[in-house]
Amino acid sequence: MAARRPQQTRGHHTRTAVLEGAGRVFDRSGFSQASLSEIAREAGVTAGSMYFFFPSKQDIALAVIAEQNARTAVALQAAATASSPMRGLVDASRAIADQLLADPLVRAGIRLSLEEGTLSVPTNGYYRDWIAGVAGQFRLAHAAGEVSPAFGDDELALTLVPYFTGVHLVSNVLTGRADLYPVLETMWRVFLSGVATPEHAAGLLEHARRGFAGRPVAIG
Amino acid sequence: MAARRPQQTRGHHTRTAVLEGAGRVFDRSGFSQASLSEIAREAGVTAGSMYFFFPSKQDIALAVIAEQNARTAVALQAAATASSPMRGLVDASRAIADQLLADPLVRAGIRLSLEEGTLSVPTNGYYRDWIAGVAGQFRLAHAAGEVSPAFGDDELALTLVPYFTGVHLVSNVLTGRADLYPVLETMWRVFLSGVATPEHAAGLLEHARRGFAGRPVAIG
Repeated sequence: MAARRPQQTRGHHTRTAVLEGAGRVFDRSGFSQASLSEIAREAGVTAGSMYFFFPSKQDIALAVIAEQNARTAVALQAAATASSPMRGLVDASRAIADQLLADPLVRAGIRLSLEEGTLSVPTNGYYRDWIAGVAGQFRLAHAAGEVSPAFGDDELALTLVPYFTGVHLVSNVLTGRADLYPVLETMWRVFLSGVATPEHAAGLLEHARRGFAGRPVAIG
Repeated sequence: MAARRPQQTRGHHTRTAVLEGAGRVFDRSGFSQASLSEIAREAGVTAGSMYFFFPSKQDIALAVIAEQNARTAVALQAAATASSPMRGLVDASRAIADQLLADPLVRAGIRLSLEEGTLSVPTNGYYRDWIAGVAGQFRLAHAAGEVSPAFGDDELALTLVPYFTGVHLVSNVLTGRADLYPVLETMWRVFLSGVATPEHAAGLLEHARRGFAGRPVAIG
């Protein structure tokens, strides 16, 4: 068995290289216009070794979406242990914004998830997981008295996740994400003005303002 | 000249049929997977007569986007003369929601505008026009004292248009737009709670609640 280890390591490296390369290609071109040969070239692997891991373009796309969700989920996990649940959520949105700016695989996964009719397998399970995770965060925020009880955990999650989605998509269409920080700050200003409790609103608004001050580090 | 009129009328009919057929095809499949022969078949026209109006698939897509914007713009134009500018904006969002539910061409135009990297011509001018139109509506709302002066016209438009975009996209991904009315009601509840002035908030919230009560008429 020990003799196989180098092979497995090389295999893991190939798989990772394919995902990173596919992320760059899908980010540029979307699913339909991406070709397997372009992905192999971008990944710097042979077509044969790529096919060993991924028999089809759809298999690659699904693996990119899974990897994107693993990466973005890390940002939300950190929020769950924040002393202020809402500040944790603001920080998570900043961390995901930075992933969008710096990581083509994250951009690709989100893009592929929203392209209806291109993948034959539904990928909205990830969206449901996201909304469930954010709803858990709002449950903590309600318990901490940070958000108004007039809004339910689930409805807040089911409106904040689409709000964030729309803001970064339109930021991309209009400015190539150059204005991502200021438009996310406005999102939080509107959202927190609407749902934060009076005793927490000012502190949360100030946290969001500071979180999105300055300019993005990298427009990748 | 009179002798040409039937020809022009038939030509206008062909052009309209192509746009409607292309709307259905792009709505189902997106740009890359749509074929010219499928569009001609769906439109019930010959390939030759279609090529006469549209030499390429991209020409058809751009015409679909232009027609979608003409149709959705009608909804916003009505808002400009409403006695309450914010109620007019709520009603416009309901009218566009109904177009999204009933009109494949509207769905297709919005989908094509958001697919980066597929059309070689930028289509974000329409987005800018939209944001400018909505900003004009917020200018009226500010003058009428309906929204807080803490938010600017442009920043409100630049956040409401993406919010609406994200809400209807995620509604499509999660439920095929079956929950479009309730998620738009939540959008307005969060948004108006955040930006409406105290003296107008209750009336505007009630207007939005009634505007999205009941169930969508058609899931097209």
